[in-house]
Amino acid sequence: MAYPQVSFRNTRFTNPSLLSIRRQTVSKVTLQTQLDLLKSTGRYDCFKLEWHPVYDDASMWPVPKHLFWDSDIAKWIEGACYFLVQEYDRDIDETVQDLVSMVRSAQQGDGYLNVHYTVVEPHARWSNLRDMHELYNAGHMIEAALAHHEYYKNKLLLDVVERYVHLIWTVFGPGPEQRHGYPGHPEIELALFRLSKATGSREAYELSRYFIEERGNPKGQDGEHYYEWEREQRSESSWKRPDPYPVHGEHWYNQSHEPILQQASVEGHSVRAMYLLTAVADMVCLDLQGHYKHEGKSQWIEAANRLWDNMIDKKMYLTGGVGAISQWEGFGRDYFLPQSQDDGGCYSETCASIAVMMFAERLLQIDLDGRYADVMELSLYNTVMTAMSTEGKAFTYENQLASCEKALSRREKWFWCACCPPNVTRLFGSLGGYLWTWGEEGGSGAFVNVHLYASAQVEFKAHSSSIRLKQQSNWPWAGDVDLELDAPAEVDVTIRLRIPGWAGQDWTLSPRCVDAQEAKGYLTLPPSYLSQHRGFRLSIGGFAPRFVAPHPYTNQRTLSLARGPIVYCAEDVDNEWERDHFRDVMISPNAPVTEESRVHQSTGEDYVALNTQCRIRTLDDWREKRPGANPGAVIGAEVKTRPVSTNSLTFVPYYFRANRGGRGHMRVGLLHG
Amino acid sequence: MAYPQVSFRNTRFTNPSLLSIRRQTVSKVTLQTQLDLLKSTGRYDCFKLEWHPVYDDASMWPVPKHLFWDSDIAKWIEGACYFLVQEYDRDIDETVQDLVSMVRSAQQGDGYLNVHYTVVEPHARWSNLRDMHELYNAGHMIEAALAHHEYYKNKLLLDVVERYVHLIWTVFGPGPEQRHGYPGHPEIELALFRLSKATGSREAYELSRYFIEERGNPKGQDGEHYYEWEREQRSESSWKRPDPYPVHGEHWYNQSHEPILQQASVEGHSVRAMYLLTAVADMVCLDLQGHYKHEGKSQWIEAANRLWDNMIDKKMYLTGGVGAISQWEGFGRDYFLPQSQDDGGCYSETCASIAVMMFAERLLQIDLDGRYADVMELSLYNTVMTAMSTEGKAFTYENQLASCEKALSRREKWFWCACCPPNVTRLFGSLGGYLWTWGEEGGSGAFVNVHLYASAQVEFKAHSSSIRLKQQSNWPWAGDVDLELDAPAEVDVTIRLRIPGWAGQDWTLSPRCVDAQEAKGYLTLPPSYLSQHRGFRLSIGGFAPRFVAPHPYTNQRTLSLARGPIVYCAEDVDNEWERDHFRDVMISPNAPVTEESRVHQSTGEDYVALNTQCRIRTLDDWREKRPGANPGAVIGAEVKTRPVSTNSLTFVPYYFRANRGGRGHMRVGLLHG
Repeated sequence: MAYPQVSFRNTRFTNPSLLSIRRQTVSKVTLQTQLDLLKSTGRYDCFKLEWHPVYDDASMWPVPKHLFWDSDIAKWIEGACYFLVQEYDRDIDETVQDLVSMVRSAQQGDGYLNVHYTVVEPHARWSNLRDMHELYNAGHMIEAALAHHEYYKNKLLLDVVERYVHLIWTVFGPGPEQRHGYPGHPEIELALFRLSKATGSREAYELSRYFIEERGNPKGQDGEHYYEWEREQRSESSWKRPDPYPVHGEHWYNQSHEPILQQASVEGHSVRAMYLLTAVADMVCLDLQGHYKHEGKSQWIEAANRLWDNMIDKKMYLTGGVGAISQWEGFGRDYFLPQSQDDGGCYSETCASIAVMMFAERLLQIDLDGRYADVMELSLYNTVMTAMSTEGKAFTYENQLASCEKALSRREKWFWCACCPPNVTRLFGSLGGYLWTWGEEGGSGAFVNVHLYASAQVEFKAHSSSIRLKQQSNWPWAGDVDLELDAPAEVDVTIRLRIPGWAGQDWTLSPRCVDAQEAKGYLTLPPSYLSQHRGFRLSIGGFAPRFVAPHPYTNQRTLSLARGPIVYCAEDVDNEWERDHFRDVMISPNAPVTEESRVHQSTGEDYVALNTQCRIRTLDDWREKRPGANPGAVIGAEVKTRPVSTNSLTFVPYYFRANRGGRGHMRVGLLHG
Repeated sequence: MAYPQVSFRNTRFTNPSLLSIRRQTVSKVTLQTQLDLLKSTGRYDCFKLEWHPVYDDASMWPVPKHLFWDSDIAKWIEGACYFLVQEYDRDIDETVQDLVSMVRSAQQGDGYLNVHYTVVEPHARWSNLRDMHELYNAGHMIEAALAHHEYYKNKLLLDVVERYVHLIWTVFGPGPEQRHGYPGHPEIELALFRLSKATGSREAYELSRYFIEERGNPKGQDGEHYYEWEREQRSESSWKRPDPYPVHGEHWYNQSHEPILQQASVEGHSVRAMYLLTAVADMVCLDLQGHYKHEGKSQWIEAANRLWDNMIDKKMYLTGGVGAISQWEGFGRDYFLPQSQDDGGCYSETCASIAVMMFAERLLQIDLDGRYADVMELSLYNTVMTAMSTEGKAFTYENQLASCEKALSRREKWFWCACCPPNVTRLFGSLGGYLWTWGEEGGSGAFVNVHLYASAQVEFKAHSSSIRLKQQSNWPWAGDVDLELDAPAEVDVTIRLRIPGWAGQDWTLSPRCVDAQEAKGYLTLPPSYLSQHRGFRLSIGGFAPRFVAPHPYTNQRTLSLARGPIVYCAEDVDNEWERDHFRDVMISPNAPVTEESRVHQSTGEDYVALNTQCRIRTLDDWREKRPGANPGAVIGAEVKTRPVSTNSLTFVPYYFRANRGGRGHMRVGLLHG
């Protein structure tokens, strides 16, 4: 098993592709822009442990505005270290070293490390795991330390987090003197597993496993749910609760309403859920790959898949976004997937889809099944990529599928809760790690499983030999992928190539391979073929524009356009006649759809726009002779449609929205009619 | 102006009709059943001010289980007094007198009257107007006293509430020594206006007007919003909040987020909103009818209509129900009107639709417009009537338009918060008052405006003469209404007959009236016609079954069946093959609909069932070869439908649901396809 955060080092993007262009932008623009923001907002200096004016701001409860600053710094360090590997920049290098030096100096004598609970509330450590993100911040610092260690090969930051983890393990755990708590916002679990793998720390493994297995215990602490016990220690009423909690005394918001193994459906805050389930999958992987035995792993595999399936089948937008409900930034009821706030919801947080990619990547390592990779690619090319402007300086936090007057399709430079922008940075920094997995197999064999297509190459050692696989393609715009294997003859290499679900059976391999087997979305090319054909071409179809419909139980009757992995949207900048967020615009699967190759001026990147015909629904027959006479209803069954002068409708990729001005009107799913 | 709670005395239901059958049931069964429940639950004796075990139950906050007991008793007294007028029952009479005697003895020396704040928290009076329903309970006791005084012609209860109102006016009002508060749950406002009209109490008028005009003042008390000030007095965090409050520190739940005159849309708890707006309309009526001058009344008329229109056009179900959101028992966003909990909501509380009738009735007195009467009738025959079983012993609180596994179509005998059942009782007790309004007009003229059709007669005095109008019909099943006027020749009588919106222009009058004018949904028959034709027939069409569709912006593509004022639903008891709440059943406006006359065994009442053809949608093509591969989407545009062996579908009136056993599967709006 290789974590993408480590394995990306073996991958190099070659010719320009959509992914590599975006990755370059993050490297050349975004890292520095975010650094400037860290400095101008006060975050940069927070580990100096001096007072900052924002610490006086008590207008928010329970989470003050600076609570995530530790993690903002940590995520930036992490992302910077990823880019330093292949895109060295002296300023970034020096900045990382400066930050690490400040973090080191901020660690307390006993190993504790947290800005808020050192500067602002020094006597309240561990008093509110549910809300205060202490362990979440610790988790991100562990991830920063791992990235730092991989790049700098020193332990300046790793030492810090190892001491901190040791302290945490003295406080939390199963022992009678330990508290039986776990983080309100999961994150540290997956960080601890990575730490354990990197350093061999048994302690880190046990702590993470404890957090996962203790979670949701109704009688964990003195016969009570930990968060109830903890609340009573704070002498707080259960009716005093943060805004995201719709009902007092319930714990599904942070997935601790019952033990994970008993959870039938994925609930609550979607980022928390995805980080937690990624860690569950990691725990299984650590057993399957021989690191730490877990007798009950089959139950955990079952639970992870049960919750994955519930999410994919009933709670995911067709853009790969999750989280219909704004209040708790998370999952709604099955099939409740409104496109816009005006329709009753749609949150689809950027971080949540990044975490979906992480969860999918881990599940792929447990079970090579294209259904995980399909979703990983869907989330990447749509919800994740739409979160950053093509210039790399503006971001979205929420990714609605349709705009409305109260929520235009716009980006922001920064957020007080700035989780999403640096998450995009570190995702692009480690993106190469998501393209493929590889390793040794069989007696003298090796394998590469290719999950995502781009122009890139991977090099790794197997049986002491160097193996290289190159792929070249114009993905995501065309399906021809030229692959070239370079390996010594004595290593039997197997390559498994993903056939996306949307391509169906529409693929060809050239030269033909009579032994190739297709199973669960992967085409396996055996050593017998590869020893004869070092170069070959996979041609994947499915790049004709296609209509996609949401599940009938969503109670929507809409159609969206997709092409390959790309989901499309209509924007007012291309369709200037639109005045109401495409709410009354109807498209038909019977109308022809034509493609239009375009070049985006500011980055020079190519994309394919789509054009089709539309009709505009008119609500004239709803305007009553007597206004207000017919409550929510009309006699008769049909709303009339009328042709309008503007009857051509242009779509662009959803990831591309909000880059060219306009009035912020946008929609993915248009009425089917 | 006559309040229906007073004017119903002039109306007598004659031949059996659906309304009179139900009214008889309430009189003969429901009153006694609810009395038994008042006794068995402890409510009956609560004004003895003794401790009851339930007072020890601190599991709920802020509203303990007994907080509404005062109003439960008051509403029962009120309803009983209405029925005593025409359906005398010695037991009921003696019970009312017993209860009034207990209430009298519970009043404190200074006039205060509230069980909770006398027995349970005697030192905390007026400490939490927002949540604790003290003024709401007072309001219902005022309404009980008015009904009691009308029937018994003594002041045994009226004295009590007059003393109490005097006390309240010393506590709350505009003066520097008064608190600038107002009730969290409006109700007392409309009660005070009625009291003021009945007794001439200027104090009652001023107090109510103050409550209405002060509401939502952002700086009302010591420069703060009253509820913020009050909360600080209690030393409570604004994050400590009742479950119906989704966000801390906001006040739209109880319509005090801004002054009423500034409110652009109807928000929050729907019963509170409707009681409040009924009182606003009352305030206007008191001016228009010469009781109390209000210089600013045109603004209030505008506000009442603005909020009415927002509700009717964008927030009302086609059953006349309001309130899409369970959490705050109230209004959602514009056009967010899901049919079932599985679809994301639907509350449609019984009390809310009763209050819609009250608000509509008041607006009709300001402006005779059929759009108000249409909604009044719609709410009555659908949401209000469906709230009680035909036997009169079981009730609904929520009135979803479709069942789901978590919320079957079922009734309950009682609720801990028992607002709805006695509200149904008092509505049926005063129902005659909603049928028509009448009075003197012009020099020697008189008028009757007929809003609802039934078999009934009204008698009243005009210019010292007795005037009687009889109507006879088989409403709501047929549109022929025979009317007969009895009046002395010297009184010029004008009759205005409502032409329902759903009838369109489909009506005839016989004998013809060349001078008849139709405007705003009423047909005016002038004295010239009526002096020649004492008997005449209005034949209203629109009784053929019709399809009704929800507004397109609801994002539903459903059809419902309606006939006259009756909205229909499908139930599993008639369609035994159904297993999933009619979720996949499709109907078409092209299929013929046939009528079937039926008699309900247990009450002998007639009703018309409807039969049509349906198809069943199959989701076979959603079952992926690889489960979980396509997140919420399918390639292609159409879900196939297949014919099934059972392709006949029977509908019954929505009000009639859940009376004949079955499994509780029910739906109003079926897929259109």
